Amino acid sequence: MLKLYYAAGTCALASHIALEEAGARFETVRLSFKTSDQRKPEYLAINPKGRVPALVTGQGILTETPALLVYIAQTFPKAGLAPLDDPFELARVQAFNSYLCSTVHIAHAHGMRGYRWADDAEALKEMKRKVPQSVGECFELIEREMFAGPWVMGKAYTICDPYLFTLAQFLEGDGVDPARFPKILDFRKRMAERPAVKRALADELG
Amino acid sequence: MLKLYYAAGTCALASHIALEEAGARFETVRLSFKTSDQRKPEYLAINPKGRVPALVTGQGILTETPALLVYIAQTFPKAGLAPLDDPFELARVQAFNSYLCSTVHIAHAHGMRGYRWADDAEALKEMKRKVPQSVGECFELIEREMFAGPWVMGKAYTICDPYLFTLAQFLEGDGVDPARFPKILDFRKRMAERPAVKRALADELG
Repeated sequence: MLKLYYAAGTCALASHIALEEAGARFETVRLSFKTSDQRKPEYLAINPKGRVPALVTGQGILTETPALLVYIAQTFPKAGLAPLDDPFELARVQAFNSYLCSTVHIAHAHGMRGYRWADDAEALKEMKRKVPQSVGECFELIEREMFAGPWVMGKAYTICDPYLFTLAQFLEGDGVDPARFPKILDFRKRMAERPAVKRALADELG
Repeated sequence: MLKLYYAAGTCALASHIALEEAGARFETVRLSFKTSDQRKPEYLAINPKGRVPALVTGQGILTETPALLVYIAQTFPKAGLAPLDDPFELARVQAFNSYLCSTVHIAHAHGMRGYRWADDAEALKEMKRKVPQSVGECFELIEREMFAGPWVMGKAYTICDPYLFTLAQFLEGDGVDPARFPKILDFRKRMAERPAVKRALADELG
């Protein structure tokens, strides 16, 4: 059975929701970042990067959210979570998720994980200070240029949706008022009502 | 015909090489970051993110290196640039490329593009100072845990290889001695000898 390693309040929620949407049989293992579980030898043996998510499959272990999302879509094709038969449309899905992981999530990470890129306390404070601006600009671009509606890619619900939902959970914590993004705010509400999202959140908060 | 927008010395080289490896018919358009071509209205109409690469296809425009690389592999399947028939193996390829875009390239970007995450001059200096360490740690992990050899994924040359080659070009500029990574150093030399790589570099440097 698939096994998802996650920590609550992290981007692992995207894969967690996707597994629920896919109707996958899976179990979860919760790590606590407070006790630095992700840095312990037993977890580094699973993911040497010391990060979540990690997905244990029958063939081996996978990491990195964009990779997990496409894997879930391909492994459960009946769930229709990605345009698997159209390389161009799949690339659009991937481009969106790649933007989330390499730009949006990174802007957010400068609030709590600035130590990855600087040591000086003043520099960390300065990076934290800019988070509302940099995250806000990302979501402006998504709202204006990328979000087709009612779901990210348009009529079809795809693996972009759980991922955007996950990062949109961070807005208030990042000091960004979600009311600036009416489409994303409405999307977040509709996502929260989906049974798969409720199940994933119940597990993470339980 | 496919059209690749790129700037010399950027991660667009990965897609450029992949197109050459695929035997694709394509043309290139070079932007200059010195004259901020990527911020001009005519380019923002192509890619509102103001970044390279962008690939114009018969179906529309694609952005983000990991997305372009899978698109190229899927559109030119005879070139065998990705394990397209095995979702697990494809996810491993994607996980590697996702690590490159969201961790390795980001560590590098703190040298020249720290203004994305801070404004204060001292903070920018501090971020630049840490680049050799953060980039060095990424390449240590790749050398030790990820690089199977002779290519990234093992015997098969894949879309991971042009991308790793591209970021490995930045090592010296990032203040990291490539001699610390014998496997990657050897890989870089072998990559530079491939006709496709030579053609892409000749176009970018020409």
